[in-house]
Amino acid sequence: MRRLADGGELARRGWAEGSAFIADFGEHLTGYLSFRAVPVGSVADSPIRLRLTFGEVPTDVAEPLYPYSGWISAAWLPEEIVTVDDLPALFRVPRRHAFRYVKVEVLAASRRFGVRFEAMTAHAVTSARTEPSPLPEAYPDWIRQVDLVAQRTLRDCLQTAFEDGPRRDRRLWVGDLRLQALASYATLRADDVVKRCLYLFAGLPRSDGLVNGCVYERPEPTYGDTTTLDYAALFCVTLQEYVDATGDLACGRELWPVARRQVDCLLARLDDTLLFHDTGETWCFIDWAFGLDKSAATHGVIVFALRRMLALAERLECAQEVAHYGPLVDGMAAAARAQLFDAGRGVYTSGPEQQVSCAAQAWLVLAGIPESREEAQAALRNALADPHAVRPITPYAYHYIAEAMLACGMEDEALGLVRSYWGAMLDAGADTFWEAFDPADPLASPYGDIHANSYCHAWSCSPAWLFRARGLGRPDGVADAASTGEGA
Amino acid sequence: MRRLADGGELARRGWAEGSAFIADFGEHLTGYLSFRAVPVGSVADSPIRLRLTFGEVPTDVAEPLYPYSGWISAAWLPEEIVTVDDLPALFRVPRRHAFRYVKVEVLAASRRFGVRFEAMTAHAVTSARTEPSPLPEAYPDWIRQVDLVAQRTLRDCLQTAFEDGPRRDRRLWVGDLRLQALASYATLRADDVVKRCLYLFAGLPRSDGLVNGCVYERPEPTYGDTTTLDYAALFCVTLQEYVDATGDLACGRELWPVARRQVDCLLARLDDTLLFHDTGETWCFIDWAFGLDKSAATHGVIVFALRRMLALAERLECAQEVAHYGPLVDGMAAAARAQLFDAGRGVYTSGPEQQVSCAAQAWLVLAGIPESREEAQAALRNALADPHAVRPITPYAYHYIAEAMLACGMEDEALGLVRSYWGAMLDAGADTFWEAFDPADPLASPYGDIHANSYCHAWSCSPAWLFRARGLGRPDGVADAASTGEGA
Repeated sequence: MRRLADGGELARRGWAEGSAFIADFGEHLTGYLSFRAVPVGSVADSPIRLRLTFGEVPTDVAEPLYPYSGWISAAWLPEEIVTVDDLPALFRVPRRHAFRYVKVEVLAASRRFGVRFEAMTAHAVTSARTEPSPLPEAYPDWIRQVDLVAQRTLRDCLQTAFEDGPRRDRRLWVGDLRLQALASYATLRADDVVKRCLYLFAGLPRSDGLVNGCVYERPEPTYGDTTTLDYAALFCVTLQEYVDATGDLACGRELWPVARRQVDCLLARLDDTLLFHDTGETWCFIDWAFGLDKSAATHGVIVFALRRMLALAERLECAQEVAHYGPLVDGMAAAARAQLFDAGRGVYTSGPEQQVSCAAQAWLVLAGIPESREEAQAALRNALADPHAVRPITPYAYHYIAEAMLACGMEDEALGLVRSYWGAMLDAGADTFWEAFDPADPLASPYGDIHANSYCHAWSCSPAWLFRARGLGRPDGVADAASTGEGA
Repeated sequence: MRRLADGGELARRGWAEGSAFIADFGEHLTGYLSFRAVPVGSVADSPIRLRLTFGEVPTDVAEPLYPYSGWISAAWLPEEIVTVDDLPALFRVPRRHAFRYVKVEVLAASRRFGVRFEAMTAHAVTSARTEPSPLPEAYPDWIRQVDLVAQRTLRDCLQTAFEDGPRRDRRLWVGDLRLQALASYATLRADDVVKRCLYLFAGLPRSDGLVNGCVYERPEPTYGDTTTLDYAALFCVTLQEYVDATGDLACGRELWPVARRQVDCLLARLDDTLLFHDTGETWCFIDWAFGLDKSAATHGVIVFALRRMLALAERLECAQEVAHYGPLVDGMAAAARAQLFDAGRGVYTSGPEQQVSCAAQAWLVLAGIPESREEAQAALRNALADPHAVRPITPYAYHYIAEAMLACGMEDEALGLVRSYWGAMLDAGADTFWEAFDPADPLASPYGDIHANSYCHAWSCSPAWLFRARGLGRPDGVADAASTGEGA
């Protein structure tokens, strides 16, 4: 990037038809753009037509968006073509955008005048009540940076609901919600929004009672038409963690039947040996990694959720009601060990091809399937070291590897993973963390075109929770920040 | 045009990415478009991006607007690219357009759903209090049609001021105002808007007191930076006619000094022989015809205005104040006769090249320069018959030929002119009359691209006045409709 002038200079220049500039607001934000368009050199004897391109990252504004090669709709491309009449005029782009950069191209204006852009302003919106605050200075710089960027990611996704990404698709997804809620408990404390999101899911289930993978909030809360089995399981986990973080037992009790219903629906999908198989009939997400077999990982998610449901029952003092699920946990664990564990290679495999993936190890470790801490560690290490293993491509899946590492005493490796993955985004200039990032192929996109990617994506905000609530990277002498959000 | 279905069908079809249709609202209007975009086949999992092209005539929507070859700004091209979030959504295009047709192209939408357009509605706006009413059935059909189309043209230009064209440039020009005001006295009677326009001009003069050719009404009334000598002269004429039509002597008295100032400024530009020469220093409009010499015609406009100022002074009972201008009229008439009349050819010429143009004859006839009715008629006939004479290309200039014909007793030829010119637009499918039309070259544009033309242009509405107030084409037995607007 070549810096042309200070922002203050902008209001002193005139831009003629065919000219263009990029405004840099210095920080990623979710919100609205406004400016005052003032004619220079003559009264404005025509409207002006502008193309505004909103960039979360420099590639959004430095490269043309077209031709577009993505498989999701080009309607997501962050541009507006606007025509402004009757200059001077204050213009506010009516749609909300996620951006740090705005490219302004004067597509058309009469040759008699140029346009001056005064008071070009970004109006940021968030439901966060406070600004992100840094970790104590005793932390290494890179951790403090990753933590801040994670918090900014959370802040910009934190709107009337927790959106997955404020650029795309601006929806509430269970998988994103769990990680956002965790990061929120440790930082911005938007407990009320977590609660609202839980009710949105609970209030808009499928006819069989499964919550949707996502909910549309606008124009009115709507059933999302996208059921995701691993996300349905995570609803229970998110509710259990909410009650734990807030002590809001009333909400826990009200939504308890919904949580139990998820588990029942999922258990009904196990085979006779109590093992889950991804038949493709209902979507399992786990990760965007191409070719990933999701049976083993989803089995892990279900066990993980079942255990959390039992923990929630304890908290709500209704453990008796679900006591009969206890043996199921053991049975599912035994089935996984018996059928998925490849003792020779020291990893769990998934599906008929006995695929080895990092995601499967992570979820089975989190589910408590391995018989020992050493076996869990070995499974994770072996998969990560295996060049043929399917590796994750999203921060979402990377998070679960880190969470699994912490669950089995691999603190140093978890920290190394966060440094090598989130740190690499930081090194690449991230202001907020991204929806997808493959360090081996940084310009890859799960959608076939990087301009379709979201570069502020909620499921990447979890390092703030790993650092603050799980003690990852905590230097000696720094007190437990736990979930206060105060940073120290 | 191939008709696909009734408008009512539209709300029953879904339109996928890449599809397009043209909606025909059946009549030209000025206003706003709204519709409800409803997803079909699935919940809308993406925004939609549409290109909306507003057509006054079929060529606007049946041909691509680009590549654009006009010399005025492409920002005038009547299109909008809009992105609609969160379907179903009611969307209203925020900018006002002038249109009968709307081409809707679904540029982008997720493949999971199609878009249904419900309640596609045009919200027409005008300051006209009544709808156009037809002339009595005793009139020939073509006259009734020309009259109605002229009234619709007036209606759609009649907004908070009399705009020249609601598509372009949506400004108040003196030349347009005079013809609109005349047509209005005979039909829609928007006297209050005429008065407002007179004050807008009077309140925003150049430093030397000349009124501008045009005024910008928005964002606030602004000096137009375009002085037009013939239009400054017509300010006096318009004021005189307003007082005459309404009896609003108070307004006449208040604006009288402005009218007198125009005449003074114009007289100061005459040479020692009292003849006007177009030096190019200040614009004279007269017509868009290429190569037109404007000296003689503008001389005619000034004499015409001077006579009207004297008539206004009589009405305002201040004739004494301007009695000394009387001899000037005679002097200017004598100068024109002596220096511009080519007795051999029976026409008036203009400029050093002794150019013959229809516009010059018209204005000099209206100014009362010819010594006899026969000489006036001959001048008009000779110019119209001369293949080398410069012919008009705008309805504005054609109007003054017709008005001049009526001034010297050429009723039949005036009616023939209206029939051959305005009637030809009607034959070409005009719903409103156009800014420019050359019957010999119907796809010509004064701007280098027909998509820059305005197809509802105020200065073409004058036939309604010619028929109603001047009795043009009136059949035997039909009473004088005069300026009642009642049609009979």
